Amino acid sequence: MGEPDEKLRPIGRIASELKSLADAPMQGSEGAPDAWLEVDASFADALHGIEVGDELIVITWFDRADRGVLQTRPRSDPRNPMTGVFATRSPDRPNPLGLHPVAVRAIEGNRLRIGPIEAIDGTPVVDIKPVLK
Amino acid sequence: MGEPDEKLRPIGRIASELKSLADAPMQGSEGAPDAWLEVDASFADALHGIEVGDELIVITWFDRADRGVLQTRPRSDPRNPMTGVFATRSPDRPNPLGLHPVAVRAIEGNRLRIGPIEAIDGTPVVDIKPVLK
Repeated sequence: MGEPDEKLRPIGRIASELKSLADAPMQGSEGAPDAWLEVDASFADALHGIEVGDELIVITWFDRADRGVLQTRPRSDPRNPMTGVFATRSPDRPNPLGLHPVAVRAIEGNRLRIGPIEAIDGTPVVDIKPVLK
Repeated sequence: MGEPDEKLRPIGRIASELKSLADAPMQGSEGAPDAWLEVDASFADALHGIEVGDELIVITWFDRADRGVLQTRPRSDPRNPMTGVFATRSPDRPNPLGLHPVAVRAIEGNRLRIGPIEAIDGTPVVDIKPVLK
């Protein structure tokens, strides 16, 4: 049962046309494209039951984030006041987890076509959950 | 920028009247109580801007979960078919992250009174995010 530490194991990666942070919108709802979620073969059994049309929450790890940031200006707008990162969706935060509500567009073996999602190409995925109805 | 691995750092803990998994409902909406989210003093600056009445998503780490489980019967009901954990909310999964939509009832220094939440006493908290409007 469990492990002594809190080490995440990526279960897959995002394959996206968004190649850099400069290309990415701040939220999926702001014009983000669809992308592939490529699940490692060793976790493929955990996809059983996911169907086209399902609504999922994909949890990513923003591996390029700055984990030392505790306050920021929301939406990187200098007119906004300094705000605690727990009151924002900034990727810079102590544990840079990203929550992405997406729809499943297609399924090809271990790959899910999902979107819209603002995560850039290569972003590690650490969990997938159904949206609770 | 970043760290070489994906090691979570707990930023606080849940203090709840729920002392064991046997006491806990499966979802917060199923009669779970309110609880305290006690944030470590070193992360207190990241709370700035959170107010009573806010809706948050609290992300926990189910430190008692079995990370080797890839399929399960939803809601532990033997009548349900074996289903991939990514199509369920089972705490047993490769990265046992819990997503808890809660409201902020009160704020006392580094402690947030939140609820409803089914996480049991002592559960590590790894992130807090605002619900996007």
